[in-house]
Amino acid sequence: MTAGGFGRANLPYGIFRRAGEPARVGVRFGEGVLDLATLAADGLLDDPGGAFAQPALNAFMACGPAAWAAARERLQRLVSGVDAEPGLIALDDVELLLPFAVADYVDFWSSIDHAANSGRIFRPGSDPLPPNWRHMPIGYHGRSGTVVAGGTPVRRPHGQSRPDREAPPVFGPSAKLDVELELGFVIGAPSAMGEAVPVALAAEHVFGVVLLNDWSARDLQAFESQPLGPFLGKSFATSISPWVTPMAALEPFRAAPLTPQEPAPADYLREEPWALDIALEIELNGEAIARTNGRHLYWSVAQQIAHLTVNGASLRTGDLLGSGTISGPARAERGSLLELSWNGAEPLALAGGAERTFLEDGDEVVLRGIAGEGEDAVALADVRGRIVGA
Amino acid sequence: MTAGGFGRANLPYGIFRRAGEPARVGVRFGEGVLDLATLAADGLLDDPGGAFAQPALNAFMACGPAAWAAARERLQRLVSGVDAEPGLIALDDVELLLPFAVADYVDFWSSIDHAANSGRIFRPGSDPLPPNWRHMPIGYHGRSGTVVAGGTPVRRPHGQSRPDREAPPVFGPSAKLDVELELGFVIGAPSAMGEAVPVALAAEHVFGVVLLNDWSARDLQAFESQPLGPFLGKSFATSISPWVTPMAALEPFRAAPLTPQEPAPADYLREEPWALDIALEIELNGEAIARTNGRHLYWSVAQQIAHLTVNGASLRTGDLLGSGTISGPARAERGSLLELSWNGAEPLALAGGAERTFLEDGDEVVLRGIAGEGEDAVALADVRGRIVGA
Repeated sequence: MTAGGFGRANLPYGIFRRAGEPARVGVRFGEGVLDLATLAADGLLDDPGGAFAQPALNAFMACGPAAWAAARERLQRLVSGVDAEPGLIALDDVELLLPFAVADYVDFWSSIDHAANSGRIFRPGSDPLPPNWRHMPIGYHGRSGTVVAGGTPVRRPHGQSRPDREAPPVFGPSAKLDVELELGFVIGAPSAMGEAVPVALAAEHVFGVVLLNDWSARDLQAFESQPLGPFLGKSFATSISPWVTPMAALEPFRAAPLTPQEPAPADYLREEPWALDIALEIELNGEAIARTNGRHLYWSVAQQIAHLTVNGASLRTGDLLGSGTISGPARAERGSLLELSWNGAEPLALAGGAERTFLEDGDEVVLRGIAGEGEDAVALADVRGRIVGA
Repeated sequence: MTAGGFGRANLPYGIFRRAGEPARVGVRFGEGVLDLATLAADGLLDDPGGAFAQPALNAFMACGPAAWAAARERLQRLVSGVDAEPGLIALDDVELLLPFAVADYVDFWSSIDHAANSGRIFRPGSDPLPPNWRHMPIGYHGRSGTVVAGGTPVRRPHGQSRPDREAPPVFGPSAKLDVELELGFVIGAPSAMGEAVPVALAAEHVFGVVLLNDWSARDLQAFESQPLGPFLGKSFATSISPWVTPMAALEPFRAAPLTPQEPAPADYLREEPWALDIALEIELNGEAIARTNGRHLYWSVAQQIAHLTVNGASLRTGDLLGSGTISGPARAERGSLLELSWNGAEPLALAGGAERTFLEDGDEVVLRGIAGEGEDAVALADVRGRIVGA
C-alpha cells in the first residue's frame, strides 16, 4: 500500500471524479484515493470554506501555508489509522482531471546542461550560454489554456517551418515533435502587484510540485522564435502530473545543486543554493531513454520567483512555473530528444533495433520522478502522453 | 450626450461599482452608465444565466455571437427611448474595474512599420524584418495576471540591464520605460483544443476591442530577451480600456490595410485583407505626441486567430490578443517612445521646451482611439496611466 512513493510521506492532492458524481478534491494514498469532501462532511477533516468540494485545488491552495500544514498533519494521522480507518476509493475507479486552474504558466530554462546543449546545437562556434544566462533565471510565458493532465493524448501540431533556408517556408505536420522533462512548481499563496517577493520567503508561496512535459515542435519553434521567443512550437499542449505533491513532502530532499552559481548572482537572487534531489526518467514505449536528477537545476524555484516578481509582477494562486528541461552532462542524462539525438544527427538506438530522432505517431512517453527510497520515498505522479497523428 | 463616440453606435460593456454595491455589468452611453443587472431585474433586458450580475464580462462573453447581437439590439432600442427611458448612472459616480478575467494574453507584432523600426534600431545593417515576419503573425505570450484597467498607476520596474556590454549587468529601476500603443481584441466564444479555427470564421470569436498600453522597460527587455523573448521587460503591467467596444460596433469601419500582404500568405491565413480604420493617439502630459491608425496593421485579428490555433491550441473566453505596437511610416505616426526617440538618440521635443527620450516619474500617458465622425463615431475608451517612481 505504501510502496512506490505514494505512502504517508507523500499524500499528493488531485481532482477526481467517479461516474455520476461531481469532481472534487482527493488525496492519493498508495493505489487508493481519499475523498476529502466526504472526510470533511464526516467531521474527520477541517474544510476551509468548502474548498474540498471544488473541482479545482485553487480554493484550497489560496488558503496558504498554515492551512496546508494543518490539512497535511491531519491527513497523515488519518492514513496512519490513529483515529479511524478512512475509506479509500480504488484509483482504477476514478477519472483524474487537471488538478488546478492554471493562472499564468511561465517556463524557465534553468538547467545549465540543457541550456548549453541548446547553444551547441543552434549556435555552434559561439559561447554555448547566452550572455544573460548566468545572471538571471531566463524564462518566458507559455499558454495556460493548453495545460492538460497527464494521460491526455497529444495531437501532432501543424505549422510553418523552413527546413531549407534558401527556399520558402512549408506548412504541414511537425516533423520534429519532442518531449521536455521538467519539474513544475505550483503557486498557492499569491503576492501583491508592485511588491517583489524576497528570495528567502519565495518558497512559502509554493504549494506543490508536478512533473511537466513541455511538448515541443522543434521545426515550428526554430522558424518562429526570433526575436520574440517560442509560440506555436510550444502552445499546442503541456502535460502535468494529475497529482500535486506538497512542497512539504519534498523538504527532506533539499540538496546542493550539482553546478555552483558562478559568478555570484545579484543580491535579490542570493540564497544558500539548493535544489531537489529527485531521480527523473523519460520512458519511451516502455523503455527508459534518459535518467537525470533535479539537482541538475542551476537556479532554484525560490530564485525563479524572486526574479519573476522583482519588477513588480504579482503571483496568483494557480501560477505554474516550469523548471525548463532538466539535463545532466552525460548523454544518457539529457531531458529531450533534441539533445538525445543531437537535433536528429545522432539517432537514438532503442531496444529491438528501432531508432528515434523525434517522436512518431503512436509513441507513448511517460515521465517519472521519485525522491528517496522505500517507506520514505516520495513519487511525483507519472505524466503519460501518446502521440496522435495530425 | 451622444457626443464623443459613446452614442448609440458604440454601447461598450464594462464592470462598474457604486459605493457599497456589488460590481456588475454596465454599458456606457454618453457620460452615463446603464446598469444591465437592474434592467434585467426590471424585465427590460434578457439576462442569459444571470451574466449581468457578475463582476466580470466572461459569463456574457461566453454566450456567443447570437446572445451578443440580441443584447445589442435591445440596448440600442432602449437608449433610443423607443420603449422606455432607461435610467443612467453618472460616470463620475462609479468606479470602473478590469472588465473581464484575462485567460491567456498573447501580444502580436503585426504593424510592419513598427517591426521594421525595431529591426533598424536593434539590428542595423541587416534586413529590418526577420525572415519569418511576412509569413506569419509573430507573437508571444504575455502575463495575464498583470493586465489592469486604465487609470491604474504604473510603478517603474526594477530589473537587470547591461548598458555597457563590456561590463557586468547592473540592477536598478528601468531607465528606458516606454509605452506601446496597441489595439486589444477580446475573445468571447471559445474553440476546442485540437481544432484549428478557419480564418473565415475567426472574427466570430471576437467579442470586442479595447485600447492596450503594453508598458515596456526597454533596457530590461534588451538584456533578457535572447533567445526566449521578452519577460520582465513587459510583465510588470499592461493597461486596457475599462470599456470593451463590441466588434459589431466596429464592423462599419473595416477597411483595406495600408500595406498589402506580399508574398501571399499560406492558405490557412488567406482572406480578403482587412483592418479597422480607427484613428489612434498617444498623449503625454496633455500633449499629443503620436497619431496613427489601425489600418497600419499588416495582419488582421482573423489571421492572428487562425495562426494561434493552427497548431491545435484552443481559444478561451477572456483571451486577450494585443495587435502589437501600431506605427505608420512617418515619424509622427510611431506608436512607442523607442521609435519616436530612436532609442534615445533623437529626443522628442515637447511643448514648453521639455524633451523626452523615455518616460519620467510623474508622466501621464493617455491612449485614445476613435472611428468615424459625429453621431456615428465609435470611440475606444481612453487608457490612462501615470508613472510612479520605483
